[in-house]
Amino acid sequence: MSSSVRVRILGVGMGPHHVTGEVAEALRTVDYVLAAEKSDDDRLLALRQEILRQHPGPGGPAELVVVPDPPRDRSEGLSAGGYEGAVADWHDARAARYAEVLRQRGGTAAFLVWGDPSLYDSTIRVVERVRDLGVDLDFDVLPGISAPQLLAARHRIVLHEVGRPVHVTTGRRLQEAVTAGLDNIVAMLNPPPHRLDFTGLEDWTIWWGANLGAPGERLLTGRLDAVRPAIGEARTAAEARDGWVMDLFLVRRT
Amino acid sequence: MSSSVRVRILGVGMGPHHVTGEVAEALRTVDYVLAAEKSDDDRLLALRQEILRQHPGPGGPAELVVVPDPPRDRSEGLSAGGYEGAVADWHDARAARYAEVLRQRGGTAAFLVWGDPSLYDSTIRVVERVRDLGVDLDFDVLPGISAPQLLAARHRIVLHEVGRPVHVTTGRRLQEAVTAGLDNIVAMLNPPPHRLDFTGLEDWTIWWGANLGAPGERLLTGRLDAVRPAIGEARTAAEARDGWVMDLFLVRRT
Ligand SMILES: C[S@@+](CC[C@H](N)C(=O)[O-])C[C@H]1O[C@@H](n2cnc3c(N)ncnc32)[C@H](O)[C@@H]1O
Ligand SMILES: C[S@@+](CC[C@H](N)C(=O)[O-])C[C@H]1O[C@@H](n2cnc3c(N)ncnc32)[C@H](O)[C@@H]1O
Repeated sequence: MSSSVRVRILGVGMGPHHVTGEVAEALRTVDYVLAAEKSDDDRLLALRQEILRQHPGPGGPAELVVVPDPPRDRSEGLSAGGYEGAVADWHDARAARYAEVLRQRGGTAAFLVWGDPSLYDSTIRVVERVRDLGVDLDFDVLPGISAPQLLAARHRIVLHEVGRPVHVTTGRRLQEAVTAGLDNIVAMLNPPPHRLDFTGLEDWTIWWGANLGAPGERLLTGRLDAVRPAIGEARTAAEARDGWVMDLFLVRRT
Repeated sequence: MSSSVRVRILGVGMGPHHVTGEVAEALRTVDYVLAAEKSDDDRLLALRQEILRQHPGPGGPAELVVVPDPPRDRSEGLSAGGYEGAVADWHDARAARYAEVLRQRGGTAAFLVWGDPSLYDSTIRVVERVRDLGVDLDFDVLPGISAPQLLAARHRIVLHEVGRPVHVTTGRRLQEAVTAGLDNIVAMLNPPPHRLDFTGLEDWTIWWGANLGAPGERLLTGRLDAVRPAIGEARTAAEARDGWVMDLFLVRRT
C-alpha cells in the first residue's frame, strides 16, 4: 500500500538471449511484472516466464501478474475518433486496469516490452495514462534490441549506405515514403505481401525476414519482383511452424 | 594456423550494462577480440577491457589484440573518389592489417561494435573486405543497443507518433530530409549545433542528448529555438566532463 509506485519499462529484445545486463539487473529487483492478458497467448506467457526464471532476485523470480484486458473495439468506424480514437479508448481502458493493480500493490513494477519500447509500442503511452489517472508513479525505460536490428544482423547488412539515411515506416505507408523520394525504407507492421503495394519497387533490392528469433525464422533477399512469390510461401511456412507470423523488410533502390 | 577463421561482429550497446546475453555468451567462447588502435583512446580501451573482464571464458577473459591503424588520409579533396573514396581507401588499408592477424591467429575472433553494427558503423564492410582479400572466413553479427534507442529511453518517448514513420539521417543531411517533407527526424554524426542548419525547424520540438551512458550525459528537450543556446552549452559541459562529446537528437514538427 505504498503511496508512490515505481514502474520500469524494460525492452527485452526479440527473445531471452537479447536481455541486456541492465534489464537482467532490473528484473532481479522488481517486485512484480505486469502483463496484459490478451497479449499473452501461451507462447508469450512462456517466454515471459522464461525471462523471469533466468533472472531471479533473492526471493526467486519476480511474480508475473496477468491483468485482464478490456475488450477491444474492432468496429473501427464507430468510434468518434476513427481508428486512432478506438486505439486511444482501448489504451484508456487498459490503463484503468493497470492503475487498479498498481494502486493496490505499490512497490516496483515492471512491464516487459518485446523489442524496443521506442518503436511501434504503446507501453510508454499507457503508463503515462495510468499516471494521468492519478496514480502517483515514477517510471523509467530501458532499451531492448528491435526487430529492424535483428533483421540487419541476420542479413549481415548495415541499414543504409555509407553516410545515408534509413526511413522506418509501416507497410501501409510504404508508398507514401516512395512518393517522398525515399530510397531506403524499413517497413514493419505489414499485411501479407499480396496486400502490400510494391508498385515502382519491382527492381529494388529487398531484405526480408519473418519470425526472427523463433524456430520458424525465414530470411529472403534479392530483386523484389524475383523474390516476392517466395515471400508469400516463406510467410506461410513460418506461420505453419510457429502458429503465428510477423515480418518486416528493408527495401533499397538499386 | 587454422585455414578457416570465424569472425563474430558483436554489438555491445552504449556500455557494458547493455551487453546482451547472447553477446556475453559469444565473448566467453571467442579466442580473441580485435580492436583498431586508432579508435582506442584510453577510454574505449578501458571499456573494452571491462566488457571482456565481465564475461570471461574458462581460461579467463578473451585476449584483446590491438591492431595498428593505417594513417587516415584527411586531405579529402586529394583522393580520386573524394570523401567516399578516402573512406574506402582507408577501409582497405585497415582490412589488410586485420587480414594479416586473422591469417596468423585463425580460430574465432570478435569485433566489439559500439551501439549496433547496423547503424553508421563500418565493421561489417571492413570484414567483407578482409574476406575479399582472400581470407577464408565466415562471419555473423549480433545486434546491440543503438544511440537513438538510448536517446528515446532517456527521454521516455517513442521515436514516432502512433503508426507514423521515423527517419534516421546525419546532421549534414538534415535539411535534405526536411525538404522531402519529413517531419520526424533523428540526426546523428552531428557537427556542433552552431554549424547545423536548423532553418525552418525553429518551432519544432527537439529531444537532444549527448554522451549518453557516460558520466557527462546531458539531455534537453523543448521548442527548438528556445533550447538551441542551451544545447551549445550542454555540449561544452559534456565535453569538459568526459574529454569527448557525441550527440544526437530527434526533431518533430509540432
Ligand atoms: C508492434 S511492432 C513492435 C516492434 C518492437 N517494439 C521492436 O522494437 O521491434 C510489431 C512489428 O515488429 C516486427 N516484428 C516484431 N517481432 C518480429 C519478429 N520476431 N520477426 C519479424 N518481425 C518482427 C513486425 O514488423 C511486427 O509487425
Ligand atoms: C559512428 S556513429 C555510431 C552509431 C552506433 N553504431 C549506434 O548504433 O548508435 C556515431 C554517432 O552515434 C551517436 N552516438 C554514439 N554514441 C553516443 C553517445 N554516447 N551519446 C550520444 N550520441 C552517441 C552520435 O550521433 C555519433 O555521432
